[in-house]
Amino acid sequence: MDFSSKLLEDAVNEMSQLPGIGKRTALRLVLHLLKQPKEQTSYLTSALQNFRIEIKLCEKCHNISDIAICEICQNPKRNPEIICVVEDIRDVMAIENTAQFKGLYHVLGGKISPIEGIGPHNLTIKSLVEKVKEGGIKEIILALSSTMEGDTTNFYIYRQLENTDVQLTTIARGISVGDEIEYADEVTLGRSILNRIPFEGSLKN
Amino acid sequence: MDFSSKLLEDAVNEMSQLPGIGKRTALRLVLHLLKQPKEQTSYLTSALQNFRIEIKLCEKCHNISDIAICEICQNPKRNPEIICVVEDIRDVMAIENTAQFKGLYHVLGGKISPIEGIGPHNLTIKSLVEKVKEGGIKEIILALSSTMEGDTTNFYIYRQLENTDVQLTTIARGISVGDEIEYADEVTLGRSILNRIPFEGSLKN
Repeated sequence: MDFSSKLLEDAVNEMSQLPGIGKRTALRLVLHLLKQPKEQTSYLTSALQNFRIEIKLCEKCHNISDIAICEICQNPKRNPEIICVVEDIRDVMAIENTAQFKGLYHVLGGKISPIEGIGPHNLTIKSLVEKVKEGGIKEIILALSSTMEGDTTNFYIYRQLENTDVQLTTIARGISVGDEIEYADEVTLGRSILNRIPFEGSLKN
Repeated sequence: MDFSSKLLEDAVNEMSQLPGIGKRTALRLVLHLLKQPKEQTSYLTSALQNFRIEIKLCEKCHNISDIAICEICQNPKRNPEIICVVEDIRDVMAIENTAQFKGLYHVLGGKISPIEGIGPHNLTIKSLVEKVKEGGIKEIILALSSTMEGDTTNFYIYRQLENTDVQLTTIARGISVGDEIEYADEVTLGRSILNRIPFEGSLKN
């Protein structure tokens, strides 16, 4: 594409770095900004900058947070004896939207995927195991996507926690196999939290 | 959506102001930035800010430009006797990519559309008519999309220029009716520039 403007070219190139945004879409978005008041671009860019620079990961659960310990971990009404293990920040949001879970979370930051080169050391599994060994946790709910990678991660965590007295459960498989947690509807996801079942090590059979 | 982070919520809200970007897509894009180095967000936001604040519209052709008069209008090798009238900046880029046109452009900034409340006074038609009356222009090529609004705009310009001695042409209708200029392939679009035909006032028949 010939832009004949360095300013436009730079804006389009940076915009098309985002996932799923090609050059043509980037151009459409950037030219849309041109039709709006200058303030809209300022609001957008400062919101993105503030987010990227000031956002923190909660020191306890690794969820994103505006402060060092996130609101959920700080909430005295939540039960610290139950930890729900999720892949991603978006899964926390999805489960919070069901209003069915009153424990705390642990965000892994992904799932074990040899194809993508993600091993257990890239995730926060070690910090989860340490948290369990410190004591005070009665139940770990595994709420990972029911994909091959999710099952592998479940099994890895199961093996790490085998010799502890924590109860390991998984959310009920009301969610169809192969579906991602974050796209499940709230009723199904809420029920799957309520109907969680003891973990048996799904790769064993 | 419950974000539990004001920084995230602001970033997602601003991102979802862009056309075709919903809250969920905005969330995905914003969380993608979190996984990238902080510099990427800085590059993106400063490119957008620089573009929005420093970009100019060429005083002669209304195309976007880094300087007061755009590179095309300043180029002594281009023929100032032929003006190609287009709706949008993206159409200039599409026609430039064909390398078939060596005249100058005139960007209308849209097309007459009563439904969207866009009348002739919202476009740069007046400046086009003045340019013609100043003399020195032999031919005006109408390269608008072949839609109802494009035809209406063509006809309006034709009526405005009826009493001048400028030759009015339209690009050849190799492009199928209802298609947008910017999505045409380069060969078809290039040929349609070469095979332009005298304008007859398409709403007359």
